[in-house]
Amino acid sequence: EVAPTHERYAVRRLPFGRLQDGDVAFFQRLMPGRVVTGEEEAKPFNVDWLKSVRGCSQLVLKPQTTAEVSQVLRYCHERNLAVNPQGGNTGLVGGSVPVFDEIILSTALMNQIISFDKVSGILVCQAGCVLERLSEYLEEQGFIMPLDLGAKGSCHIGGNVATNAGGLRLLRYGSLRGTVLGLEVVLADGSALDCLTSLRKDNTGYDLKQLFIGSEGTLGVITAVSILCPQKPKAVNVAFLGCQSFEKVLETFTTCRAMLGEILSAYEFMDEKCMELVERHLKLSSPVADSPFYVLIETSGSNSTHDEEKLNNFLQQAMASGLVTDGTVATDSKKIKASYLRERITEALTHEGYVYKYDISLPVRKLYDLVTDMRARLGHSAKSVVGYGHLGDGNLHLNVTAESYSHSLLDAIEPFVYEWTARCSGSISAEHGLGFKKKQFIQYSKPREAVVLMQRFKAMLDPKGILNPYKTLPSAP
Amino acid sequence: EVAPTHERYAVRRLPFGRLQDGDVAFFQRLMPGRVVTGEEEAKPFNVDWLKSVRGCSQLVLKPQTTAEVSQVLRYCHERNLAVNPQGGNTGLVGGSVPVFDEIILSTALMNQIISFDKVSGILVCQAGCVLERLSEYLEEQGFIMPLDLGAKGSCHIGGNVATNAGGLRLLRYGSLRGTVLGLEVVLADGSALDCLTSLRKDNTGYDLKQLFIGSEGTLGVITAVSILCPQKPKAVNVAFLGCQSFEKVLETFTTCRAMLGEILSAYEFMDEKCMELVERHLKLSSPVADSPFYVLIETSGSNSTHDEEKLNNFLQQAMASGLVTDGTVATDSKKIKASYLRERITEALTHEGYVYKYDISLPVRKLYDLVTDMRARLGHSAKSVVGYGHLGDGNLHLNVTAESYSHSLLDAIEPFVYEWTARCSGSISAEHGLGFKKKQFIQYSKPREAVVLMQRFKAMLDPKGILNPYKTLPSAP
Repeated sequence: EVAPTHERYAVRRLPFGRLQDGDVAFFQRLMPGRVVTGEEEAKPFNVDWLKSVRGCSQLVLKPQTTAEVSQVLRYCHERNLAVNPQGGNTGLVGGSVPVFDEIILSTALMNQIISFDKVSGILVCQAGCVLERLSEYLEEQGFIMPLDLGAKGSCHIGGNVATNAGGLRLLRYGSLRGTVLGLEVVLADGSALDCLTSLRKDNTGYDLKQLFIGSEGTLGVITAVSILCPQKPKAVNVAFLGCQSFEKVLETFTTCRAMLGEILSAYEFMDEKCMELVERHLKLSSPVADSPFYVLIETSGSNSTHDEEKLNNFLQQAMASGLVTDGTVATDSKKIKASYLRERITEALTHEGYVYKYDISLPVRKLYDLVTDMRARLGHSAKSVVGYGHLGDGNLHLNVTAESYSHSLLDAIEPFVYEWTARCSGSISAEHGLGFKKKQFIQYSKPREAVVLMQRFKAMLDPKGILNPYKTLPSAP
Repeated sequence: EVAPTHERYAVRRLPFGRLQDGDVAFFQRLMPGRVVTGEEEAKPFNVDWLKSVRGCSQLVLKPQTTAEVSQVLRYCHERNLAVNPQGGNTGLVGGSVPVFDEIILSTALMNQIISFDKVSGILVCQAGCVLERLSEYLEEQGFIMPLDLGAKGSCHIGGNVATNAGGLRLLRYGSLRGTVLGLEVVLADGSALDCLTSLRKDNTGYDLKQLFIGSEGTLGVITAVSILCPQKPKAVNVAFLGCQSFEKVLETFTTCRAMLGEILSAYEFMDEKCMELVERHLKLSSPVADSPFYVLIETSGSNSTHDEEKLNNFLQQAMASGLVTDGTVATDSKKIKASYLRERITEALTHEGYVYKYDISLPVRKLYDLVTDMRARLGHSAKSVVGYGHLGDGNLHLNVTAESYSHSLLDAIEPFVYEWTARCSGSISAEHGLGFKKKQFIQYSKPREAVVLMQRFKAMLDPKGILNPYKTLPSAP
């Protein structure tokens, strides 16, 4: 069992109020039957999906409406009680569970679709809608969500927005900063901010919602989302390829971007070590011959004949010029399997024991050098060092596994990995956020003045600091 | 000649410092030969492109570097001197010229390209680069800018970002909120904020740059921009069509979105009145038979054979089903003419006399009703009431012309147009911003709490209010 976070990381509790019987009684009156108390009952909400951090909260609240979220925060603000907003609890940086006894405010029951407009493709829904449910709902109407990620079966759209989730479709549909059109947010003092517009363009004043996108629940609680959804592509094709070197992975990318153009919707890569783990732990098998690197290419378009022609032309050239040594184009059923394999690397890794996860943005040319350097540095002290990710976005997922957590291995990895990244002007968190585990390293990617400004925004919007404390921004020295 | 803005609108000057000889001497030492003084010399910087507003500044500064911008603002902050940041001065809401004697800080000489990476397509440049120059530079390298607009020959990229410009390519490449990757900004007190990263993904803390995108120079002066540029499409086609009703314009849009899918890059419409003005004032002629409505469709793709096949299939269906009564597909040379026509409506309108401009976001179905209602309301008191715009984005440009400015016509239009828009939950400024002319109407599109929060951000970042005063946010009552 994972040690309590505050013990493992020696964190000091901030002087928030302590939960009293009267508080629990208040919440039980406010939302009868939707208040979880007790150590055992609250446990699943205290431990993250990776089982890497653990809080000690004794109280979980499950509001159904924005008004209830308002009342909860107004009360907590008044009483100086800290609050940990929680979506699907699939975050990878310890941002979604408490560090001490913060009240957990779960969006699990805020799962209503408010509206969908088939002409504009704009979906408005509550923050607790599970991403996969939304995808299923939209597919029936001929649309898709603009984002897709491995955790889709559990993650909430509100949590996706709060962490500015990236995922597999970013290459094609852009980030949530463009596709999220509106948000409804409850601020730390309980006041509701209605920016839930459904307009593609709106230049009336500052775009307040942007501040909440990616703020990891530290500036406000997102209660509803308006999001622009693309039409469901009529044709989707997946190619799974083997490459003999990372250089060939890069050259394949340049070639495929030029030849597939507007229909390219994902360009993912993984190294042979990833494939090994997926095969070993999940009993899946590679669709192509063993290679040092694998590439997953997805196309999405409106004309299957055109798309297949483009894809075949590209594959022919890639094979003929030796960029790719083996490849398979997936038909509809095989397609699922091939993309499944890529999506399930995270899961395979957890079977190894403890996983040190790094989510790095780098100039694509240098992307894999970090994996090579880390592997050489750690030698036998790590069980495995693997690299995969969204190459098309310059995003590497570097993972180091070990039987169990150890301070000494952590010290061998950090701050080395952050210093390496900073030297290349990369980002130490491309899409996972900073949460609890990365917040002390923000300065490797942001100048001091920017961090100071962020702290001023935090102080302005949440002067008592009750929203998701110990997260995102570094503690004062 | 246009009357001074503060007289026409009866604005009271805020208690900023008044320019003294010592101030001018300081700036002349700081940037010798790049300081413009005197009423006549400063006049072009005091009047907007529409000749609708006029300031009375006697001082224009032309820094070349971020360090110079810093020194200017540090000095002005200290002396409590108001500053009007200015790009290409092509804004349409009076945001780019002073109201009183604000010092004009022009980015005209900050026109250097800093870097361009051909693998990632990321351009980094100074804020004063003219959009068209950047486009030309990129086209030589096989890329394009993610935005395009009529004012491209004069507008600066920094001004584009400061106003969150939309334009013709938004439908395809998304808004600047997604394509701008980094900004360098000088704050009101002269401190520089370096968020000029060149990463597609970066989730380390709050995304500060978003606050400056669309803030119209009221929160900081943008000095450099990092922007993601798409590959230049191998094939571009333009179709110009005539439709017999607005309903057919809408149905044509739905059909074309489904059939053209990922290659659709613009869907613009204009009414017959627009065509009349373009023909009359600019001596251009319509490429299709007279119709109540015209539609311009642009496709951009990677395979000309595929694209032409898609476009022809669509046109065949649109003609056969009577959605479209006349149409022409433009070859490369004719293409320029057809899109030119759409781009030059703004210019044609200025020949009419005074133009009351409205840039509205609405649900597409109701888009043209506002034009019809306004035409009926104004009757003969207006010279013409025309509608055109980016239908694909739900963005209507409503323009009312008259021989000259009159208070009574303005009163007939406003607040009627804003009330109409608010009833449909639209935006009173889709892409032009609020600037000076629209700031008092923000409440038609934003709730009070949002405006209060914006004012708090302004007070935090610019406590003396020296940056572009009298703009964007409403004056205190």
